[in-house]
This record gives sequence, structure tokens and C-alpha cells, in this order.
Amino acid sequence: MVTPSAPHVYLQDIANWDGKEITLKGWLYNKRSSGKIRFVMLRDGTGVIQCVGSIKDIGDEGFAAIDSMSQESSLTIRGTVRADERAPGGFELIMSHVECVATALDEFPISPKEHGTAFLMDNRHLWLRSKRQVAIMRIRHCIVKAIRDFFDENGFTLFDPPIFTNAACEGTSTLFETDYFGEPAYLSQSGQLYGECGAMALGRIYTFGPTFRAEKSKTRRHLTEFWMIEPEVAYMDMWGAAELAEDMICFVVRRVLETRAEELKVIERDAAILEKIQKPFPRISYTDAIEVLKKNGHEINWGDDIGGDEETTISNQYDRPVFLHHFPAELKAFYMKHDPENPKLALGFDVLAPEGKGEVVGGGQREDSYEELVARIGEHGLKVEDFSWYLDLRKYGSVPHAGFGLGLERTVAWLCGLPHVRETIPFPRMISRLKP
Amino acid sequence: MVTPSAPHVYLQDIANWDGKEITLKGWLYNKRSSGKIRFVMLRDGTGVIQCVGSIKDIGDEGFAAIDSMSQESSLTIRGTVRADERAPGGFELIMSHVECVATALDEFPISPKEHGTAFLMDNRHLWLRSKRQVAIMRIRHCIVKAIRDFFDENGFTLFDPPIFTNAACEGTSTLFETDYFGEPAYLSQSGQLYGECGAMALGRIYTFGPTFRAEKSKTRRHLTEFWMIEPEVAYMDMWGAAELAEDMICFVVRRVLETRAEELKVIERDAAILEKIQKPFPRISYTDAIEVLKKNGHEINWGDDIGGDEETTISNQYDRPVFLHHFPAELKAFYMKHDPENPKLALGFDVLAPEGKGEVVGGGQREDSYEELVARIGEHGLKVEDFSWYLDLRKYGSVPHAGFGLGLERTVAWLCGLPHVRETIPFPRMISRLKP
Repeated sequence: MVTPSAPHVYLQDIANWDGKEITLKGWLYNKRSSGKIRFVMLRDGTGVIQCVGSIKDIGDEGFAAIDSMSQESSLTIRGTVRADERAPGGFELIMSHVECVATALDEFPISPKEHGTAFLMDNRHLWLRSKRQVAIMRIRHCIVKAIRDFFDENGFTLFDPPIFTNAACEGTSTLFETDYFGEPAYLSQSGQLYGECGAMALGRIYTFGPTFRAEKSKTRRHLTEFWMIEPEVAYMDMWGAAELAEDMICFVVRRVLETRAEELKVIERDAAILEKIQKPFPRISYTDAIEVLKKNGHEINWGDDIGGDEETTISNQYDRPVFLHHFPAELKAFYMKHDPENPKLALGFDVLAPEGKGEVVGGGQREDSYEELVARIGEHGLKVEDFSWYLDLRKYGSVPHAGFGLGLERTVAWLCGLPHVRETIPFPRMISRLKP
Repeated sequence: MVTPSAPHVYLQDIANWDGKEITLKGWLYNKRSSGKIRFVMLRDGTGVIQCVGSIKDIGDEGFAAIDSMSQESSLTIRGTVRADERAPGGFELIMSHVECVATALDEFPISPKEHGTAFLMDNRHLWLRSKRQVAIMRIRHCIVKAIRDFFDENGFTLFDPPIFTNAACEGTSTLFETDYFGEPAYLSQSGQLYGECGAMALGRIYTFGPTFRAEKSKTRRHLTEFWMIEPEVAYMDMWGAAELAEDMICFVVRRVLETRAEELKVIERDAAILEKIQKPFPRISYTDAIEVLKKNGHEINWGDDIGGDEETTISNQYDRPVFLHHFPAELKAFYMKHDPENPKLALGFDVLAPEGKGEVVGGGQREDSYEELVARIGEHGLKVEDFSWYLDLRKYGSVPHAGFGLGLERTVAWLCGLPHVRETIPFPRMISRLKP
């Protein structure tokens, strides 16, 4: 029975349409013929399904349409959904009508064979159509939504900080500058300082937006443009912020496991590894970490920065994220509060992801004394007048407050088990990558 | 009864704590004394409450603490919640203990008296603490969340487009440029072209991020940095995108009415005006609009752009948003599909908000023919090689597709009834405004 008005259904909803006639609209992912039968793998961006048809079902016209189409030609197919345990996804479509929308004008550059990274990156706009990239993008969306839901459900107010700023917050060596009607403006490296204004106004806030760092190093963990989530809470101390980070990460991991099991299978990510991400995360002080690193053969001394290789040594000791805390204050940003019991230490922490995925969170308590902060700005070679508004937060009803920043792309890379951040964002930007 | 561990409660949850002893942490909004009683208005970023205490309740120490504090000093108060119909918000707190956290080091610059706009903008970081600004920020958050929920619940995948781009998409006169490791990069004016790649990969996507335009004009409607939502859908035509915009706007308005009634009261926004935002929105063609404008005394001819004053004349005829559609193709961007029945017209639409709030949405169907698009890029003086990746979308399985862009700040201004967009975002950026 042909119903001209068979409803347009997306493959992610196919399970609701078993036995019914529907219309699918998508692209040809693959095809084959076996005697008098044609098989079309159709993708619509939410899934892939095998569609089957004999000449009796779809006629000479249907056969001709299928035979004329190469990979990524666009087409619509009407047919009846049939549950089939053997089919990937559990369903196939018995075709009743096939219509080519547009044949691909050229051979699609990305075939199932292996391609080099540079080639795939040059064709990122097309690479995104592959099953694996679609799965990663859907997991990224799930992570973003879980993070937002976590803060929304816990009484935080969203607070979008500006991108154009007139001063640096995370060091001046990685600033992107633009001409702002005759004066220089810098692209935000972090929304934190503005987030602190938000916390004083709204109690608990989170920022969530792109941030920019002119990273000259080519690494697996750095993008020049990446998204950060930065909650900031008035009347919270360092350990409160650490618990908040712990709760948020566990919430996000659970959501991914519950709603993106199919996508994890597509990218062959072992869900059992993610099941282990449970509270409490171990906490190890910087001072203890240095001892652990020495025992593991690293040449490192108290006061040195902990680099990528050292992070991997530490995180490899655990099956879940680990807090590194109480760093030497000298290594940290000017706004970090010093430990009253040992002013050489900062009341800050990093979260290192397991599997050598590196730092995904940096946070801590902020300096809340006006006098201390003025001194610290001077020590760091910054201009007090650039931060007069920030100092005002200490002038008018200063309170203990804390927060953290989570890098979205590193989190996606970690949860997806990707070796490089370049696949975690639609169009990654790195030192030698501005296109497409 | 004094319970030293009285739980810290946020004022937005106060209704759950009637009759119980709690701790509030916040800032002094106002105070007065009446004989042997002290009244403290405390704000915590989620609400304001009146706290009442006699010397019997809080002792000499409590009285001294209150007397020492000026506006915006930070303090914690323990006390018992008491429902009181006369109290703003419905509750007050009978104090049992008051503790000053930090006195304001100076008189808070923003008092209840009137201040000039420039002064308030210079002190934006402090202005945000006022009741009215807090309410606007909470409504902004509600609008953002409603928009995301709308797309998430309707099967769209979030797709974050890049900010750094190598070519302009909405005209070259308003580009911000930066030095990207030796080559020029431009800050994104719109994520649409990238969103189209997303739609071909994922079926239905939405972008939601900051966009940048070096607007030299000082108007009530323009920011240099503003957030845009841009859904893009494969296999959708112009009217499908218009309906999507209509459904989204109605969904958002309903959410604001349902969850932000208190905040609407604070900013004195008449909810009855918003109740009228119902489907269907009237649809008027550009050609008909020109006639209406002529009848209303505007000197305008077919082919002219419809400016702000003209928009107001049109939108004033309706109590809900109005679609303006089928503009002269010459007025529109290169990617807009021309009407096959009249190639001088573009298959695009704007949504004008009521109350003279101007264009909040622009959208339409995209050119899906490879040859037409190549010609159009040339006609607009753009370089084909800059758009080779964008043209690939027409080379490999082109499909009819459409979408729109909604400006967040204009939407917040409209729903809040604000005359100027500067209050709709924490730190607005305009031609002469880069600080704080």
C-alpha cells in the first residue's frame, strides 16, 4: 500500500514506527545489489538504516535511481519499518518508493578506506558526516546539556561574560588582540574575573562560552579556541569548589552512560571504564605528588611546574579523576588565595583525568582581601588601574568565594577516549589550522 | 533555640523553610531601626528578605554589627523563617544571630537615587547587584534555557561553530580582525555557513554562541558582541523555518511567564502583553509592507531597505510578532535562495517583535544549486576559493535546507520591555564601551 503522505521520520525515532509506512530523508551511505534486490544504507544524521527493495517493490525507476547514485547523494525513501534483530540498530526498511534528490557531482572524497589526518582536517566539513564523527558530536551535545542541567538544577544562574576585554587574566603571552575602534581589545582567555562579579550579584553563577589562547605549542590537548564552563560561588571555600567539580563530573558521566550508549559503541569506547568514575576522587597535595614523581623516576623538585608527562604518571595510578591541590603560590595566577597556614601555597586544585588525559579542571579559592590583591597584582607585573573594577568586589562586601574552570574539549576527548582534542569540536582551531 | 548548624538556605528556596531556623549569607541591601528593633534587608543574589531582631534576639553584639554596616557590606544571619503576607516575597526572618563578614570599605556608589547611564555603565560590575538587574539576568537565563530546551526536546543536535574564520559571511564592513599566527582571522559574524555543514552531517542542528559585528552606529538595538541562536535543518523549506521560529518564540514566552513571574513584577513588565504572543503570527510580504508604509506617510519605494522606523510602523499594527517575507533578493545575503517563481525575490523572512522592538529573527531557505551559488558569490564580490568548503555542501548530496538566526539580546530586551539592549547582557560591548 502506497501512502503518499507517509510521515517524515528521523532514524533516532524509528523504534516507534515498527510496521508502519514512513518517509526517510537523507544521504546514501553505502549500497550493494544482490541478484534482483537492492540494498541501500541511508543516513539522516541521527542514524543509519539498511533499506531493502526488489524490482516488484520499487520498480525500474527505483532501481535506476539507486544505480545512478554514488556515496552522499541525497535521496528520500518511502517504505515500511520492520524490526530485525540482525540489522544494525534493530530495524530495516522495506522500500516502496525511492527518489533521488541530488546526485553527488563528484566522487565523495572520504571513503571507508584510511585517510591521513591533514586530509581529513582539510575536509572537516565532509568528515563530520561519518558515523564516528556524528557519534562524537552527539556525545559532545550530551555533555554540554548535562553540564548546563547540573548547574540549572542546583540553583545557579547563567552569566555570559564578555569576549572583548581590556586586560589579560591568564598571562599576556597567549593573547589574541583586535583593533576595537582605535583601541586594543583582547579576546577573553577566561570568564572568571567577570564571573566573580556575577557571583557577588547573583550568589551562584556559571559561565559557559568560548575562550581564546594563542597557544604556539602543537599538542594533543591544546586548541586556540575552546569552550569553558566556569562556576563561581559566593560564600564557598576551596574544598566546596572541589566537591562541586566532583559532583558535576559524576553527573555528566552518568548522563553520557545513560543516554549515549549507542554512540559509545560506535566509537568503540569501553563503558566499563566510565562506570568507574565515582565519588570520592582521590586528593593528593602538590608536595606529596612531587615525592610520587621522584619515586617514579621523574627529575623534578618542589617548586617546579607539573607538566603533561608528570600528570600522566600521577593519573595512571588511579581509575578515576584525581585532585592535585595546594600548589606553590608562585606557579598560580594572581587571583588565587594563599593558604593562611602556609602562605607559600595557593588554595587551588587541578583535576587530572584518568588515562593520561591531563588537566580537565583548574580551580580554587579567590583572594578576598583588598590589600593582598593589590599587592599581588603588582607582583605579577599587572596594572592596578586595569583591575579597579575587579578590586571593587573586595571593597564592597568582600566574601570568601571559589570556583573552577572545566575545559569542554578535553572533557569530550577524555569521555570519548580520543587521543587528540581535534575531533571534539566541529571546526577545531590550532596554530596551523584556520580552515575550513 | 539557637542551632549552630542551621543550614545555609538560598532565598529562592525560602518557602520550603517556614518555621525553621536557617542561615542566610549575603549582603546588606538596606536597613532601618525603629525603637528597640533593627530591620535588615538582606540580599543573597536569589532574592531579598526583611530580617527583624530586638536586642533580646541578637544582643548588643548583633546591634553593633548591624549599626557598623553600610550598604553592600557582607553578612550572615541566623534566624527563623516566618510567613507574612505583608512582607515582600511573603516571608521574613526573625533574627537570632548576626555576623558581619566584611564591612564595605567605602560608600556603595549606587544608591536608590537616580544615576546617569554613563555612571551606571562605568559601574556595571556593581550595578548588576541591583534588584532590577538581578531580575533581568534571571530572565535572560530563563530565555537561554528555554531556547536550548526547545531544540533539545525537538531532536536537534547542538553544533558549536568556530569563532575564528578566514572569510566574511555578512558583509566586510563590520569585521573584527585579529593576527592569527601571521595570517588574518576574522571573528564570526554568524555561525550559519558552518551550521549548514552541521545540518548535512546531523540532520537538524542549532548553534548558540557569541557573534561579533563592528557596528559603528550607536543605536538602542546594536551591540558589537551578541549571542545568536541559529538552527539549520536539512530537507526544510522557508515556511518550515518560519514555523520553527514561531513555535520556538511561543515556547520561550510561555516559559518566561510560567517561571519568571516574580522577576517580571520586579521590572514592572506587564505580563498581559506577553500573554498575547500566540500562534499564528501574521505574515506580510515585503511588497505589501511597502504599500502599508506608503499609506502611513513613509517615503519609501519598492527595492528600498526597511529601516528601524519603518519596522516600528509595521510592528505597531499587531499585538504579536509579524513575519516580513519575500524581500528583494538584492537586499539579502548571497546564500539566500531566490524564489523560483520570481527570481527578484529571496525566500527569506524577518520576524519583527511588537512594541517597536525591531527585527529579532532573520531566516530563510539557502541556495542549494552549486552553479547558482558560484554565480552569487561572484556577484557579491566574494572569492569563490574562500567558500570552496561551503560549495562542497552543494556538490555532495545537496538538499533543500533552511534556518534562521535569533538575536538573544534583542529578544531579552523585547520580553523584558527594555528600551535599550545594554541592560540585557552582563557586560555590554558597544562602540565606546569596552570596560569594565
